[in-house]
Amino acid sequence: MTSVGTVETQYLDLPQPLKLECGRTLDRVRVAYETYGALSPARDNVILVCHALSGDAHAAGRSATAPEASTRDGFAADDRDGTAGKGLGWWDGMIGPGKAFDTDRYHVVSTNLLGGCRGTTGPSSADPATGRPYGSDFPVITVTDMVRTQRAFLDALGIERLAAVAGGSLGGMQALEWAVRYPDRVDNAVVIASTHALHPQGIAWNAIAREAILRDPAWQGGHYYGTGRTPAGGMGVGRMVGHITYLSAQALEDKFARRLQYADDIRYTVTEPEFEIENYLRHQADSFTRRFDANTYLYLSRALTYFDLARQHGGGSLVRALERVAARTLLLSFSSDWLYPPVASREIEAALRLLGKPVESHVIDAPYGHDCFLLEEARQIPIVRHFLHEGTS
Amino acid sequence: MTSVGTVETQYLDLPQPLKLECGRTLDRVRVAYETYGALSPARDNVILVCHALSGDAHAAGRSATAPEASTRDGFAADDRDGTAGKGLGWWDGMIGPGKAFDTDRYHVVSTNLLGGCRGTTGPSSADPATGRPYGSDFPVITVTDMVRTQRAFLDALGIERLAAVAGGSLGGMQALEWAVRYPDRVDNAVVIASTHALHPQGIAWNAIAREAILRDPAWQGGHYYGTGRTPAGGMGVGRMVGHITYLSAQALEDKFARRLQYADDIRYTVTEPEFEIENYLRHQADSFTRRFDANTYLYLSRALTYFDLARQHGGGSLVRALERVAARTLLLSFSSDWLYPPVASREIEAALRLLGKPVESHVIDAPYGHDCFLLEEARQIPIVRHFLHEGTS
Repeated sequence: MTSVGTVETQYLDLPQPLKLECGRTLDRVRVAYETYGALSPARDNVILVCHALSGDAHAAGRSATAPEASTRDGFAADDRDGTAGKGLGWWDGMIGPGKAFDTDRYHVVSTNLLGGCRGTTGPSSADPATGRPYGSDFPVITVTDMVRTQRAFLDALGIERLAAVAGGSLGGMQALEWAVRYPDRVDNAVVIASTHALHPQGIAWNAIAREAILRDPAWQGGHYYGTGRTPAGGMGVGRMVGHITYLSAQALEDKFARRLQYADDIRYTVTEPEFEIENYLRHQADSFTRRFDANTYLYLSRALTYFDLARQHGGGSLVRALERVAARTLLLSFSSDWLYPPVASREIEAALRLLGKPVESHVIDAPYGHDCFLLEEARQIPIVRHFLHEGTS
Repeated sequence: MTSVGTVETQYLDLPQPLKLECGRTLDRVRVAYETYGALSPARDNVILVCHALSGDAHAAGRSATAPEASTRDGFAADDRDGTAGKGLGWWDGMIGPGKAFDTDRYHVVSTNLLGGCRGTTGPSSADPATGRPYGSDFPVITVTDMVRTQRAFLDALGIERLAAVAGGSLGGMQALEWAVRYPDRVDNAVVIASTHALHPQGIAWNAIAREAILRDPAWQGGHYYGTGRTPAGGMGVGRMVGHITYLSAQALEDKFARRLQYADDIRYTVTEPEFEIENYLRHQADSFTRRFDANTYLYLSRALTYFDLARQHGGGSLVRALERVAARTLLLSFSSDWLYPPVASREIEAALRLLGKPVESHVIDAPYGHDCFLLEEARQIPIVRHFLHEGTS
């Protein structure tokens, strides 16, 4: 399968202020985006791809601008030999000619999320009221706000309807929110390694990652821009936590076991990495902190822990929340994913079935944990293609 | 069952310098300890109890000195109605008249570990060479060093032989090390919720907790004593990580679910706790940092990740490592413990059986994760009593 080629990230300023769930309004919102494949004259072949916590608009192809560190997570960043850091999109294996989201057929649109740090308005953007970066004055945003931003963006492009909305993890939450909030605009929802509401252990991991940032004195109450100091230490720790939750214990056993890093024996050090896994974690943290903004991490982490379809749309009932869904729904989960475990997808499936809505659900037996959604592309592609083509043929 | 009553922590200075595995020597080592039950004239009824990462010598009864925050972990600190913070020992449910370690029969000895911060020499102790606290000049210690310290301490008390050595988690590692290193001195080893070598995910969690401390600028290279600043922020984050790994996802679901802390709805905040679990984590971190030394955390965490019976005693083979064991071994593990999972106990059991050594192993089906070893006392007591009495009757 080939690539979509070289791609340039584009930018669009929303024509209207954006009203947020928290009650505040963002007067100016810029959206960074990329598109792959041709838009049909009827504008009816659009697939919106939604990224996860650390992704960006660059989902497929090679970046036209200077290569940055890959936004792929975990093993996915490593195992794609030699491509990480060379500007390949984070879902390149899924988007392109003949791939799951087939650019010979679909016009795939990918935006950087509201609150992001890769071109879309977020805490590191300039506040028009002051000219300085928002920092922690940026309003607290939700998945609903992200989806409203995407809708306003698509409206500005003249796209009224989505053949599909798709994403993994936080991206899957957006796909679900789209299907519930704008049922008349979504034909298909592809929800991968995601959930209708994160379980309390997942809430805890996210809280710990945020605490690591908040407790770093360099965070400076959120106003670290331009001070020469960033909370890289704290965000690095938070990233380490996230990283381990994205992988399975078995994957770590297979990849690292208890191998020592530098020598045949221990060197008696508390400050230096000693086991390979310890060195790997430091490397992952350092490469992440070079490319990511700590406030964006805080805001997106908060948004994904808030997300709760039953609370937001169903008065506590998932079934009631899903009543409005008109889209066909595809749910993919992975047997070893303990952060977004298959049980969440089964709950969504059960609720949709109870409502008589069209839903297809697959648990893929794979060992890498949550990162499977970026790694197990070969097994997802035929399922997604079959689901989409069946629906549009 | 009754208590051992009020207990005073005592102190003993080792008569000889302590040679460490790393090659360095500690000239002066003080050991904090408590004892419960009478020593038999033949000095043959001694049970040494070994504590885990955050414990201390005060294992049973009520402290004679001012009550400090409990050293019990996690839910164990909460669920014992009203006893936490009132000076009750961390294993009071297991040690006392008629309990698992029956003080009507045994003389139970509990020491604070080498490297500790509760009376035994550790990084916060004064370095005799400078008069100032060691800080990060304290030598890197291992489980072997802890056990050697305990042996030197028992020698000084005139105790040559242990009816049993017992501990959970890091304490279980010490029990195993005792059985392997001093086979002619141990009659029974009681190893609870422990392992012969932590798996790589466990190494990772410990590495992350240490990173959180090391990256806190208040750590100051380990020499924060007397500066008015301590790395409480980083250690708090580390403690949060530890805390979640001690519990099971199901336990968090049962106890917290997704309940909000202060209101019926979200308040749109990235800095304040919003879910009950978030508030609980902050509370746990804050109470821990008030009572524990960050350098001790670093050193004990490092020691427990180093521990590897097969590497240290068997040239990579667990069976070879266990060849010297003469003690009867009791292994207890808990079905929901994912930090020290039952599989580790099964591996030890299999190796001992292969060698024809007497071993008894139980996996207790319980939902609370690693913390079960402090919570499920009622189910451990009959097993431990039967094991010990069968052996001594």
